Amino acid sequence: MIQKINVGLIGLGRIGKVHAQNLTREFPDVLLKAIAEIKIDETIKEFIGTLGMVRQDLTQDPQEIFDDPKINAVIITSSTDTHSRFIQEAVKNNKHVFCEKPLDVDIPRIVDTLKVVKQSGMKLMIGFNRRFDPNFRKLHELVGKGQIGTPHLIKITSRDPTPPPIEYIKVSGGLFMDMTIHDWDMARFQANSEIEEVYAKGGVLIDPEIGKAGDIDTAVAVLKFVNGAMGIIDNSRQAIYGYDQRLEVFGSNGCLMAENEANTTLRTFTKEGIRSDAIPYFFLERYTRSYVNELRYFFNCIKKNEDPKPNGMDGLVAILIARAAQRSYEENRPVKISEIASEYYIDNFSNFS
Amino acid sequence: MIQKINVGLIGLGRIGKVHAQNLTREFPDVLLKAIAEIKIDETIKEFIGTLGMVRQDLTQDPQEIFDDPKINAVIITSSTDTHSRFIQEAVKNNKHVFCEKPLDVDIPRIVDTLKVVKQSGMKLMIGFNRRFDPNFRKLHELVGKGQIGTPHLIKITSRDPTPPPIEYIKVSGGLFMDMTIHDWDMARFQANSEIEEVYAKGGVLIDPEIGKAGDIDTAVAVLKFVNGAMGIIDNSRQAIYGYDQRLEVFGSNGCLMAENEANTTLRTFTKEGIRSDAIPYFFLERYTRSYVNELRYFFNCIKKNEDPKPNGMDGLVAILIARAAQRSYEENRPVKISEIASEYYIDNFSNFS
Amino acid sequence: MIQKINVGLIGLGRIGKVHAQNLTREFPDVLLKAIAEIKIDETIKEFIGTLGMVRQDLTQDPQEIFDDPKINAVIITSSTDTHSRFIQEAVKNNKHVFCEKPLDVDIPRIVDTLKVVKQSGMKLMIGFNRRFDPNFRKLHELVGKGQIGTPHLIKITSRDPTPPPIEYIKVSGGLFMDMTIHDWDMARFQANSEIEEVYAKGGVLIDPEIGKAGDIDTAVAVLKFVNGAMGIIDNSRQAIYGYDQRLEVFGSNGCLMAENEANTTLRTFTKEGIRSDAIPYFFLERYTRSYVNELRYFFNCIKKNEDPKPNGMDGLVAILIARAAQRSYEENRPVKISEIASEYYIDNFSNFS
Amino acid sequence: MIQKINVGLIGLGRIGKVHAQNLTREFPDVLLKAIAEIKIDETIKEFIGTLGMVRQDLTQDPQEIFDDPKINAVIITSSTDTHSRFIQEAVKNNKHVFCEKPLDVDIPRIVDTLKVVKQSGMKLMIGFNRRFDPNFRKLHELVGKGQIGTPHLIKITSRDPTPPPIEYIKVSGGLFMDMTIHDWDMARFQANSEIEEVYAKGGVLIDPEIGKAGDIDTAVAVLKFVNGAMGIIDNSRQAIYGYDQRLEVFGSNGCLMAENEANTTLRTFTKEGIRSDAIPYFFLERYTRSYVNELRYFFNCIKKNEDPKPNGMDGLVAILIARAAQRSYEENRPVKISEIASEYYIDNFSNFS
Repeated sequence: MIQKINVGLIGLGRIGKVHAQNLTREFPDVLLKAIAEIKIDETIKEFIGTLGMVRQDLTQDPQEIFDDPKINAVIITSSTDTHSRFIQEAVKNNKHVFCEKPLDVDIPRIVDTLKVVKQSGMKLMIGFNRRFDPNFRKLHELVGKGQIGTPHLIKITSRDPTPPPIEYIKVSGGLFMDMTIHDWDMARFQANSEIEEVYAKGGVLIDPEIGKAGDIDTAVAVLKFVNGAMGIIDNSRQAIYGYDQRLEVFGSNGCLMAENEANTTLRTFTKEGIRSDAIPYFFLERYTRSYVNELRYFFNCIKKNEDPKPNGMDGLVAILIARAAQRSYEENRPVKISEIASEYYIDNFSNFS
Repeated sequence: MIQKINVGLIGLGRIGKVHAQNLTREFPDVLLKAIAEIKIDETIKEFIGTLGMVRQDLTQDPQEIFDDPKINAVIITSSTDTHSRFIQEAVKNNKHVFCEKPLDVDIPRIVDTLKVVKQSGMKLMIGFNRRFDPNFRKLHELVGKGQIGTPHLIKITSRDPTPPPIEYIKVSGGLFMDMTIHDWDMARFQANSEIEEVYAKGGVLIDPEIGKAGDIDTAVAVLKFVNGAMGIIDNSRQAIYGYDQRLEVFGSNGCLMAENEANTTLRTFTKEGIRSDAIPYFFLERYTRSYVNELRYFFNCIKKNEDPKPNGMDGLVAILIARAAQRSYEENRPVKISEIASEYYIDNFSNFS
Repeated sequence: MIQKINVGLIGLGRIGKVHAQNLTREFPDVLLKAIAEIKIDETIKEFIGTLGMVRQDLTQDPQEIFDDPKINAVIITSSTDTHSRFIQEAVKNNKHVFCEKPLDVDIPRIVDTLKVVKQSGMKLMIGFNRRFDPNFRKLHELVGKGQIGTPHLIKITSRDPTPPPIEYIKVSGGLFMDMTIHDWDMARFQANSEIEEVYAKGGVLIDPEIGKAGDIDTAVAVLKFVNGAMGIIDNSRQAIYGYDQRLEVFGSNGCLMAENEANTTLRTFTKEGIRSDAIPYFFLERYTRSYVNELRYFFNCIKKNEDPKPNGMDGLVAILIARAAQRSYEENRPVKISEIASEYYIDNFSNFS
Repeated sequence: MIQKINVGLIGLGRIGKVHAQNLTREFPDVLLKAIAEIKIDETIKEFIGTLGMVRQDLTQDPQEIFDDPKINAVIITSSTDTHSRFIQEAVKNNKHVFCEKPLDVDIPRIVDTLKVVKQSGMKLMIGFNRRFDPNFRKLHELVGKGQIGTPHLIKITSRDPTPPPIEYIKVSGGLFMDMTIHDWDMARFQANSEIEEVYAKGGVLIDPEIGKAGDIDTAVAVLKFVNGAMGIIDNSRQAIYGYDQRLEVFGSNGCLMAENEANTTLRTFTKEGIRSDAIPYFFLERYTRSYVNELRYFFNCIKKNEDPKPNGMDGLVAILIARAAQRSYEENRPVKISEIASEYYIDNFSNFS
């Protein structure tokens, strides 16, 4: 007989709602048992009604989830500054954790959290959902099967359709931390190698207000991997035609390219020319399936007692690279990841993995 | 306050299961209250468990569904020969009906059923799901908006990946009834016009056993629409590369083309050449979203008290065209739909719509 | 040592000029020695200047070309009604002939001409240039190599960007003779089989004036090949987005598709959507390379003393099919090619090949 | 009356032959009057025969061309070390010059040559042929028309199918000078702005012998333009699937992408998957039309007395960038172009333009 996994979810923001819906629809052997959300209003109540959940399943206090012995796993989708605290609390209470990215922005706190997780023996997975996009996942698998030989070059195009509000940008940690964080992870994932050094270049080309807020809106980065491969990332906060998400891995025996998805396969031929249908507007539309896939994978890891990837160490490394990129941009020089790591006395990543 | 729609489903075959899953996942305001299935075995019991349903929700007797006053709508996915009977029973018990295609193969029985439905005032929708495929739906809308002017030519490519078992073929009603039925409906849908005449040509090119069973495995048809447009359909029971489903509408101001979907956007460039990812294998993979969309539309029609399309008349007309095509093939001459209709004293389609 | 082939060209209309330019540019071992053109004006004189030819190379009398013993080959690009006469004159004077399509519209005259050609032992090639388009040629070769197994279905899309003048249409012989003629040939070429029967449907959907001139502007045709395969052709006189020329061969082991070419590989992504560059406007742009390739092939046949294809018999067969299609359209019934052939006492095609 | 332009060509290597053929075929108002080639053998003699030229048109001594008062323009396709000398000699003899890239590898000599050209008043064009590729040219024009607003990012993919011989690599000046030279020019052309700074990263990932020869085989570069835009270039000496030549310009209002061309538009659908036809093998196949277009443009500049672009200054700037990239790679730091220029006392580029 299959034992159901009982899940508690903390944080019902935009991404929390996505997970809540997926949890109640897609996994017959998973029960979303409780949700903690600090602001409970009518919208939230209505929302949980659509999930088939009732008032009693909802709490303002995450501690109720940590204290519930029937809950096996916690999904953390609350604000970034709460991540470390909730992860620690969860694993101490013998719950596996799926935590949204970024793990945290404070490196010592991350290091501390990873130690606690390690001691607990519980599983921690970080929500780098793009690894579970069917296109990028299959690309990764084909690279792994050697279809293009040894990777020489990883190229990532990652552009948002529109910048977030200036207020958000002010607290975002900067483009390299907030937006490129996915790309740092994707680059490592596709190269099957650690990033050794990064050179980042940026500018304020879209909105001067972003510059006034201390951030940039356009960036490129060159990566050097430990295995000798190189990487290129380009970011923009405003691709006016939609969410531009492409990936290319070039190697000794060929090249793999993942193009943008299209809303439909339609093409229109008229006097004015040939039009294809638009690409998905933003991440909720583009990465729909990845959110289901990452949870499915997480629950499988629990069932099979396997360590999930991306794990806490992957979450930490992405933060280190973001810091290196920020410094590279500020000082206009290539920066080694080890330069950042050593400042936090992190000299052996594998201690935490 | 929103009243839930209570649904009963009859028939848990392949397509019945698809609807059952969608009903329990996708529609917060719909309750799948009961399922009738004649053969209840362990697999079925396990399946309804994954839906969150219990033994009491399952019956071998459809009459229980018809007798349940709380049930507002019935989804009929049982074998074709039961359709007319169940539709009549359902509407007489004040239930709206969604019935899988084909409506029935017996034309007088269909005529009779449509009369009963009309008298009941209940809604009847036929599951021509392809109308709800996002690609074809959008194509239809763009034609409706006049993007390509007046349609001159409708081209449908519709090829299965592999023939059904010979035993199935023997009772299928023939390729024009079993397989092309979707295409007859799609042609009418895209042309916004009735088919006046059909010329069909067929052959046994794939498997001689299909010929021995009295059927063909490859066919082309030319359509003449009432509005002057023309249509072309081609069918094969075996497209070895997957489920080939394309559509093209050419008009006075341009052309709209809906290409095959691809499993991923990946392309592989190697010494051996450039490969794209495969197309979906068959209808369950290709038309996944259409099955959700058609039910959503059906429930919306109930809530808004609107008449659904495709309705019973659309179901009847598709059968008439299939008969005309079969006769055209057998006698190698173009056949008017009215020739078939008049043999059944159907001289005014609109009486039933 | 390589002997130059000396060529005479008759007729400096649009297509004659294309050949003249190609003859002087592309073939170092071919000398365009003389041109006959009935209307010699300043434009013509200027044109031959750009070819590096002089006044003495130009004549109003084709007989000068036939009488010139140094000329080995004649390119006939004069009006259709002169073809048979010039072919006969040329071969009687020991010259190989490349003649533009259609060979002639008068069937008995064609039969007579083919007999004269046969007796002469000279080569006759008909300018069905599309066989030499790199896309369609390669498709043909891949079918020949068995890449898609046995062909089951040949699909041809062939649409002009704009109708010819009404005056032209009046003398054109009708759409099936003037426009579809290329498609009849292409279908036979790709199927590697003769067409047994044709069913054609047509209409006046673009311009009522075309109807008043006794012609149609839109047509579809279904073909039955001797080897059991089927074919579909669709034609329009007005594809507002350009010259739509596509080809598909579906078979037991797969499918080959030749898409339209594009002017450039550019795509533009803006708020308004995604645009691809336009397709070539008409045949001069689309089939540029085919005109060079067909002449190269013709000269190679001469040098190697091989029989060219498409030959006079291919020219005749295309005319027979056009006649069958016309009758099919007029009488709304499938028509066997043999029905037309037998009316002209052509009971064995191979006598002429 | 149109006066013919008389042309002398110096150097009948691979690219010299391409120009010679184009000169004799494509330009009715241009006469290829003389060719100078140091090694005259049977192959060369045969080749000029195919051009319709005779022994007297061929010389081993370029001086004969410089001394011929009837010659208006000289095409220099000899080895790089002869470029400066031949350019100076030509312009002193009142001949316009089209010179293959690179202009020279010795910067002081280039500066000297540009002064001589300037004093002479003759025109000098450098053969950066890719500017005349129809895809990239149209992209440039659309950017110029503002279709994507202000450019933010220029992305160039430029990969050869196979490395040149090691002996060639040893004298090539290095990848950034020999291969990326085209991309430096393309980046400036598309950005409509000068490059201010370059950061280059490279490696030996394909063949250790290339490393032993002191060169790299794989590289990426990040560009900063004066107007604030950024650029990314990636190079590989071995793209096993063909000559990978793509271009992307991303801007405030959209994005323009030029994809690889394909040999044909064919796609093959089989059990093994979907294949597209290969991309052109190398530059002779890929850039065929660009070689004709650049000469047409050059001759038009002469006829209209306009200054050609790319000119000598464009040739010089590309060399300066190549040097900056090389230093960036060697010292692993971003390098300003002005750093290189100032070492050669070039403080004002516009003096030479």
